Order: sequence, then structure tokens, then C-alpha cells
Amino acid sequence: MHRVVIVGGGFGGLYAARSFRKTDLQVTLVDRRNHHLFQPLLYQVATGALSPANIAAPLRSLLRRQKNAQVLLDEVVEILPRQRQVKLRDGVLDYDSLILATGSTHSYFGHPEWEQIAPSLKTLDDATSIRRKVLSAFEEAEKATSVEEIRTWLTFVIVGGGPTGVEMAGAVAELAHSTLQADFRNINPAQARILLVEGADRVLPPFVPKLSAAALTALRRLQVEVLTDSMVTEIEPGKVTIRRNGQTEEIASRTIIWAAGVQASPLGKALATATGVELDRSGRVKVQPDLTVPGHPELFVIGDLACCLDEQGQPLPALAPVAMQQGNYVARLILGRQKGKDLPPFRYKDYGTMATIGAFEAVCDLRGFRFSGLFAWLVWLFVHLMQVVQFENRLLVLMQWAWHYTTRNRSARLITGPLPSPHEDRKDEG
Amino acid sequence: MHRVVIVGGGFGGLYAARSFRKTDLQVTLVDRRNHHLFQPLLYQVATGALSPANIAAPLRSLLRRQKNAQVLLDEVVEILPRQRQVKLRDGVLDYDSLILATGSTHSYFGHPEWEQIAPSLKTLDDATSIRRKVLSAFEEAEKATSVEEIRTWLTFVIVGGGPTGVEMAGAVAELAHSTLQADFRNINPAQARILLVEGADRVLPPFVPKLSAAALTALRRLQVEVLTDSMVTEIEPGKVTIRRNGQTEEIASRTIIWAAGVQASPLGKALATATGVELDRSGRVKVQPDLTVPGHPELFVIGDLACCLDEQGQPLPALAPVAMQQGNYVARLILGRQKGKDLPPFRYKDYGTMATIGAFEAVCDLRGFRFSGLFAWLVWLFVHLMQVVQFENRLLVLMQWAWHYTTRNRSARLITGPLPSPHEDRKDEG
Repeated sequence: MHRVVIVGGGFGGLYAARSFRKTDLQVTLVDRRNHHLFQPLLYQVATGALSPANIAAPLRSLLRRQKNAQVLLDEVVEILPRQRQVKLRDGVLDYDSLILATGSTHSYFGHPEWEQIAPSLKTLDDATSIRRKVLSAFEEAEKATSVEEIRTWLTFVIVGGGPTGVEMAGAVAELAHSTLQADFRNINPAQARILLVEGADRVLPPFVPKLSAAALTALRRLQVEVLTDSMVTEIEPGKVTIRRNGQTEEIASRTIIWAAGVQASPLGKALATATGVELDRSGRVKVQPDLTVPGHPELFVIGDLACCLDEQGQPLPALAPVAMQQGNYVARLILGRQKGKDLPPFRYKDYGTMATIGAFEAVCDLRGFRFSGLFAWLVWLFVHLMQVVQFENRLLVLMQWAWHYTTRNRSARLITGPLPSPHEDRKDEG
Repeated sequence: MHRVVIVGGGFGGLYAARSFRKTDLQVTLVDRRNHHLFQPLLYQVATGALSPANIAAPLRSLLRRQKNAQVLLDEVVEILPRQRQVKLRDGVLDYDSLILATGSTHSYFGHPEWEQIAPSLKTLDDATSIRRKVLSAFEEAEKATSVEEIRTWLTFVIVGGGPTGVEMAGAVAELAHSTLQADFRNINPAQARILLVEGADRVLPPFVPKLSAAALTALRRLQVEVLTDSMVTEIEPGKVTIRRNGQTEEIASRTIIWAAGVQASPLGKALATATGVELDRSGRVKVQPDLTVPGHPELFVIGDLACCLDEQGQPLPALAPVAMQQGNYVARLILGRQKGKDLPPFRYKDYGTMATIGAFEAVCDLRGFRFSGLFAWLVWLFVHLMQVVQFENRLLVLMQWAWHYTTRNRSARLITGPLPSPHEDRKDEG
């Protein structure tokens, strides 16, 4: 029996595993976490509109009916391509085909020390801790005694104007200007300053300029200050330094969120050591057109971990649909081989990209059909709702969205996590 | 303007604050957490049936329309009754009337070291960490290689047969025997052993024997092993020691949950130091019949923090309805004093108590009308649903219950929190 080991239960890994259903191959899916996460809605958890469980589903329950699939909650420590084995923290797995789909993590461009001060959004724990940070800032402002202090607590800086940054900035602006409006007595949350800092000359650089302009208009309507052509040069507790038009500017802020850079999961490096495969600048594995590692036809890399070139020789973007299609492709390739058949190289079918900016506003680029505004938002809503994996979650998300978008309430505004000890000075925490 | 400071946003504190609406008193509610928590359903979060946000609501949003009320996220460090001040971590508050309602915490009967191994259920963070522990046990069992090891991972010990312990045991049993049934490949979760350990001669000791017997039958139907007349004498990583009928027994288990003892919040001790007031054995403040501290008519203690005697001289139980009624009483007392009126001593109106044991089964004691079974469960369902504070949450809970009780699914089965490092040996963690 052909043994397929899949590492990573994100879009790529999960779709690969599911593509083996109704076959007699033996599939083992390994993930460090017990759940598949719908990352595109993570910013809604970070701003209290949805609960973690609404956008995550246990991998086991997603694969419970697929009897040839097993889920292991574990972590890969080493890859041994010669022995066709992966070493896990708690054991060893033999494979005939190996699919690596461990995705990406954030990159601080050589400043790992910034992470402590400016967290980024990749996991559910990131989301609840950013939620805690954002909500606590308003609480601290309410208690602050000087105007200066209040202003620092009410300044939110989001670094990176890609889809995550834009969505996060829009959601924080709505939180401050609508949701929390009547909640405080000493401060006016509507006076919060939300800055979005982007290095390129426009937000949403992967989109066409027309849609970037629409996004900018929408952000301005939400009173988000957009700083383009701006590089973050330093992040310290309570302060971020920006370089813009040759000028250096310091912004006092206690809530800085990083949405700027990604790099491939460290498993890429482990694979490079084991097989000699080349990595690109962000650590992604340079795969063959059939997504295999050169010299290892049984070893596949998909999703954000792979650097896969399109027909123009450009690397494919790190998007969920790419990962899903690759997962599906690899499964078909492996199944085809079983029958002695071969597949043409992987080709990405681009159905479009979209991003949302607050309630009732989004930008869509669907195969050259580009539009923004309410209709784009409805398309965004529908597509995202349909992609949430579990039927129950879909209903829960729909209900919470209906409530949220009509009342502007965000019911999951919980500050959780350890309490500060009474004598701890949280002012220095960043 | 009369200034009322309320410490604690649980049932007592929140109901007191709300009872001042439409008055011109100035109310400040201080809590360490930003949310009011509906504790009776905490066990459903700990077993993945509900999300934290479903049973918690931000205190600010609960009081947003009450313009004379302010919420402060802070912690009381000291009480200064002579100056009529409370010292907070981040400031000082003056009061004319002070209401202390900080509730209770768990007690390990002089063995604080057990807490690390056998956590208890008081906060949302407790609930998500117990959820993590329970779900991880099945994951570890799936990876375990010896029968011995599997059995240890699949043994769950719940210490304490009061309502929380009974509800927790029932929910863990349903999780193992129904929800997870088809999820694993190497183990059969239905073989999990769930033990409920109680020191008295029956479960639910505060109820009448007839209802205890009904609860026992229901627990046995769920395959929970109930050990009555059993005292826990030692808890070590991977092992709990029980003394029963003069015999000592060791049970190998990696998942021990503490639901046995409570003690008053440490603020009681601080108050005793400041005012000389007496505390009872579990640290509760012995209040006057009007819930004031002797010699301090402006200082009130309510809810689990208060030891208040009924007409028979028995202390009132630590229940949500007691706290709510006391919160309401104290507010009326303070308002009455403003008009020169006085109130008779506090009297608790006991509408009844109830506890649930898994799906479709509960016991109710409503003013002497005692019943169990499906009807009791429906009453339990209705009463609890109506008490969840926010309308949106009520809808979300209803929907998730409908789903959960028909499919036995528990959609919030997330393992969150920091990942173990690859080289950490979690086997010794407990």
C-alpha cells in the first residue's frame, strides 16, 4: 500500500489529503496544531468580530469519514530522503510520497527583536493576543492621566499595506470609530489615530492601480491615515520610526501590528540541508514544474513553502487558491503514477483576488473584471463564507456577520490571557 | 454626588451596578478582566461545545447605556476604609459607598502544589487550558506505543462531585464516547475511563438524596465511574492517590481536573486587615444582616466573598442567584439611605437549584418541587439560555446547542496556546 505523508494541515495539505479520498493509498497528515485555520478571516478574530472556533475546524473532524487518512498532532524534526522517512518529535514515519505544505511565517527583515513589540497575525494565538493588545490600549487610555499618554495609547500603527494590513487597519478603525463609541467615559475612542504604513507607492501593490486607489479612498473614509513610500526603520517600545521622502519621523504608539513580510517555514531550510535543493530569497523551495524537488520525484512541496514559477517565469503568489490547486494537483499526480500515467506540469488557474476594507467595501479582481464598492463586498462575503470549511461554522459566521454589520457590535471583544501582577509596570511592556 | 465603587463584575457586582441605573449616583465598576462571565456554562467551553465569547460579554458594553456608570480595568491593591479610598494598581478611587464582590477562587485544601497538575475551572483561560489538556490527552494516546501509556492518557479523573464536577464528568464522557468516536485510527476514544471522585457518600451533596441518586444513574449511563466516600490524598504528575474505605488506591492518569474546593478571593483577607472584620473558614467575610461590615455602614460585601447567614443561622450557599439578589439589595439600601429610608435585613429568595448531566438529563430542585430527566433538562436549558446576558450570545448559544445536542459535535475543539518546543519532554509535564 502506497504511503503518503503530508506535513501541514493548511489549505495545501488539507486539499491534498482530501483528494486521496476513495482511494486505497494510506494518508498521514501531520500538523503541530489540531485545527485547520481559515487564515483570510484571522483579522476578524483579532478585532473581536468572530471567535477563534468560527474560523478553525479540527483536522480530525474534517477527515473523520476518510478512513484511509490519519491525523497526527506532531512536528517534523528532520527529513531523511534517503531512508524515505520523516522524523517527528514523537516518532518516525515511513513514506512512499512526501508532501510538504508547512506554509510561511512572518519576517521582520532582519530585525527579529521587533516581533516582541509589533506582533503579526498568523495563528489563532496571534489573533487573540493582538485582540488583547488592541482592546487593552483603549483600557489604558481610559486610565491615563496626561493628554500625551492618551494619544500614545490611542495611536495604532499597522505596518504593511497588503491585504492583511488593509483589512486590519479598516477593522481597527471601525472598532474605534463605531463599536467602542459609547463605551468609555474619559476618552473618546473616535479620536484614535490609525496609521497604515506601506513601503510601495500605493496600498495593495499586487492589485492594479485602479483598485489600489479605490482601497485608498475607502481607507480614508474610515479615517485611516495611509503613509505610502514609507519604510519602518526602527521599532522600540512605545515608538516606531519611519523614513519617508528622505525624512525621518517618529510616531509614539503602544500598539504596532506587523503585516509586512513573510518568509517560508523553516522546514524549507531543513529540506535544503537534506536534499541540496535551492531556496529563494524568502526561503521558499524552488520546485520543478511538477512541484517535486529536483532528483526526488517522490518529494513534493506545495503552497507558501514552494517557489513555483508560472509560464512567464514569475513565482506564483502566496495565496490560498494556489495552495489548494497544488494540493489537488499533487494528489492526482501521485494517483496517476500508480496507474502508470503522467500529468502535465502544474498550471495555476487564477480566478481572481480580493480584499475587504471595512463594512460594505471591498476590491475584486476576477480574471480582469475589476470592481470595488458594495457589490465587491457582497462577492467577498459570499466567497469567504462558502470557503469556511464546516457547515456549522458557516452558519455561525453568517449570523455573527449579520449582527456585526447591522449593529457594528463585535461580541468577541474579550481580553484573555494571564493577568499582570499588581506590581508589574506594564508601561514598559511595549 | 454620592460615589459608589463596586469591585468585581461577576453576578453580584454587575447586578448592583445595573440597579443604580436611572439614578444620579456615580458608579465605578472595577474588574481585573474586561468581561462578565457566565460561569455556569464554563464547563461547556472546557469541553469544546461553546466558544469563550458565547458565555462572556464585555462589561463596558453591558453598561454602555448607563451613563452614570464607568468601568475600570484595574485591580484593587489595598482598601483604606478610614480615608474611604481604594488603592488600585493604576490609581486611587474615593468612595462614599463601597461594594466588594470579588467572588471566590479554588482551594486545594493546603496543597497549592496540586494546582499545576490538576487545574480547576474559574476563568475563561482556565477553560481553554483545560480544553487543551483534555483534547491533547486523546492526541497523545493516539501516538502512544504501549497499552499502559494509552490507558494512562485515556484516564480522566475529576475531583469533586458537586455541580461543576458532575457537569464536567458528563461532558468529558460525551466527548469521549460520542463526539470523538470516529476521529482516531489507533485508539478507540470510547475506551476512555472517566472517574468522578467525591468525599461525601453521594454526588451533588447540596441536593436531596433522591436527586443525587438520579444524577448517579445518569452518570453511570454515560459510563462515568463514580467513587464516593473517597478522598484524594496525593496528586503527582501522572498519578492520583485516593483513600477509600480505609484503603489506598493509585490511579494512573494524565488528566486530573479539580472541582472540589473553593475559597474566598484574597480581598477578604485585605479587608480583615483593614477593618478587623472576621472571616469564616474559607476566607469569606462575616457580614451583618444588611451585608455591611460591622462598624462600617458604607462598606458592603456580597456574593461568594460574603458569609451571610440565613434565618436558621446557616451560611447562604455560593450561588449566582444569591449574589444577584444581594447586589440588588445593596443598591436599594444605598438608594434608600439617600432618601432617609431603611431596609429590613437581606433575605434570600430561593427559587431552586439545578445541575445537568450530559445531554437530555438534569436534576432540578425548585422550591421543593424535585424532578429529574428530560423535563428537568429542558428547564435547565431554558433558564440558562435566558440568563446568558447578551441577546446575540443567546442566539449563538441556542444555535450551537441545537447543533451540538443533535449531532453530538463540539465545534470549538481547538487546542490553542504555545506549542511545545521540539525537544521538550512533555511526558513529565503532568
